[in-house]
Amino acid sequence: MSATESADTIRALHWWGDCLQLLDQRLLPGEQRWLDCHSADAVVGAIADMAVRGAPAIGIAAAYGIALAAAAGEDLEAASERLGAARPTAVNLHWALERMRGIAVRGGGARAERLRREAEAIHAEDLAANHRMGELGAAELGAAGAVGTHCNTGALATGGFGTALGVIRAGWAAGCITEVFADETRPWLQGARLTAWELAGEGIPARVVCDSAAAALMASGQLRWVIVGADRVAANGDVANKIGTYGLAVLARHHGVGFMVVAPTSTIDPAVPDGDAIPIEQRPADEVLAWAGQPSAPAGADAWNPVFDITPAELVDVLVTERGVLRRPDARGIAALLPDGGPGVIDTAAGAP
Amino acid sequence: MSATESADTIRALHWWGDCLQLLDQRLLPGEQRWLDCHSADAVVGAIADMAVRGAPAIGIAAAYGIALAAAAGEDLEAASERLGAARPTAVNLHWALERMRGIAVRGGGARAERLRREAEAIHAEDLAANHRMGELGAAELGAAGAVGTHCNTGALATGGFGTALGVIRAGWAAGCITEVFADETRPWLQGARLTAWELAGEGIPARVVCDSAAAALMASGQLRWVIVGADRVAANGDVANKIGTYGLAVLARHHGVGFMVVAPTSTIDPAVPDGDAIPIEQRPADEVLAWAGQPSAPAGADAWNPVFDITPAELVDVLVTERGVLRRPDARGIAALLPDGGPGVIDTAAGAP
Repeated sequence: MSATESADTIRALHWWGDCLQLLDQRLLPGEQRWLDCHSADAVVGAIADMAVRGAPAIGIAAAYGIALAAAAGEDLEAASERLGAARPTAVNLHWALERMRGIAVRGGGARAERLRREAEAIHAEDLAANHRMGELGAAELGAAGAVGTHCNTGALATGGFGTALGVIRAGWAAGCITEVFADETRPWLQGARLTAWELAGEGIPARVVCDSAAAALMASGQLRWVIVGADRVAANGDVANKIGTYGLAVLARHHGVGFMVVAPTSTIDPAVPDGDAIPIEQRPADEVLAWAGQPSAPAGADAWNPVFDITPAELVDVLVTERGVLRRPDARGIAALLPDGGPGVIDTAAGAP
Repeated sequence: MSATESADTIRALHWWGDCLQLLDQRLLPGEQRWLDCHSADAVVGAIADMAVRGAPAIGIAAAYGIALAAAAGEDLEAASERLGAARPTAVNLHWALERMRGIAVRGGGARAERLRREAEAIHAEDLAANHRMGELGAAELGAAGAVGTHCNTGALATGGFGTALGVIRAGWAAGCITEVFADETRPWLQGARLTAWELAGEGIPARVVCDSAAAALMASGQLRWVIVGADRVAANGDVANKIGTYGLAVLARHHGVGFMVVAPTSTIDPAVPDGDAIPIEQRPADEVLAWAGQPSAPAGADAWNPVFDITPAELVDVLVTERGVLRRPDARGIAALLPDGGPGVIDTAAGAP
């Protein structure tokens, strides 16, 4: 069985009739409810409120949002600005909006139809990129063992199959992953709620761990790799990803555990020289201080709630993209992945340097 | 104002009439409900179910449990065995039971009365040790700044004032701590629920952070020290403490942040050569997989839920005990703190080597 034949059944968003349907990820795993987005502003709300999350999925949703704006005869620049401001860190959002802008300005009839088709193309390309990354990443894993992952980077976070979780799906199918430890990923618990749900659906053995247990897990010798996604990769290879990723990278290096980042080239932002220049979203304190409507801290308590952190490139052992794999990524390697200076055009001839 | 004049108003357990009253810490901060324990088995249940938690508080509660068993005319050896088995990692429990056994076998009349007085003495000595550690630890802090802490090591976890949180109280009173970042400490959220509550009561500025945000916080340069407690310290200085402590120690060393462990000598177990020999309690998966009665993971999910981890002595910059401070603790330093080979007798002449 080839790595790419691993299971791929979950979709978190799709165009349906005249609207974008989103699986409301805030309610999983308890409830599977689809949200119908009939306007760009409905998509803005779904992104900001995290009904849809995950850098690639946000980008795809934003592209469909432009298609909805065009169908409604809205000002596309204004819609694009609102969509782009919905979340600040993931760059796929801006990449997708830029690509949609390119189609919009091309002129000619049936613009709404062209934009919807472009959004569908972005979606399909993301899915294909994930399958390719699954194949490339699994080939890096080596001997079979357990791996750890953080947040959710699966079908729910992307156009399907997943980035880091795509590599895990492919690695499981190829027999080089035997078990997955899924960090629960506070404060939104994407690991417990979403990753465990996806893995259960695939029949991949998984255990949820508190984020703070990662160090003990590594010290126990059970982990061979930590495999994570990315919300933005700087020109030098620094990685912005879910809060906690940076700590995992430090701990992985300390314990001799491999650290793999899996992200399509649409996540690379060549305009940002390094991690310091990536804006880090701070979200409301009450995301940390309450759960399921119950306060978990005394009234009046404050919290520090950055949603992402920056992992320096030197802590990344392998960066997997659909255009190839970089071991110990750096500015030269990143530039080689983007021969045209940007991720807009796929050059299928480009492989690992 | 001297460091020891810092506020000290909260008590989580006390003898009242003919029973031990425990503040039920599972309900804080939402509700302050006292549990009346009229028997040793009621204390066993309160320890096992975490109504009372924190290594020193567990030891004190167990001592009162023996007093209750004596008052009821129970077999003290059997009661001691049940109390000792209630939680496996904290050694204060066994230390306190051993000390009570010494009083019980001494013979003579009014045994129940003697045992109650001994439990009260253990309680009072713990409180005094905490004030002394506060003074000693605060003197190590140096220039003013923010500190991080993990779990709850305050009045609620001890006979009063706290171990690590006692140093924080004293450091705040002395002007060398300006703000506290309290890890929420999954899965029981002792940081968010208990530490934030104690700090709010003292008027000490505090922010709760997700456990996974510690690395980003250190990278931001905001933290000068991480100050934690301990559930057991091995003869070589290795420290068992709340899950997540070890990761904080690795991260602190990586970022040049000081790492301080605060524990009375009753937490030192000279019979355990190193951390590998300390039993680590595994608790039920559902502590991780559900929240406020709501499942946070899909039905059938599994979890890995070790409650403690081991921090090697070489990652500890300072170990603060009531008998003195060890910088870079090791077997020789630990032995010097326990000149009689055990923590039973306080030698007030012993200071930092």
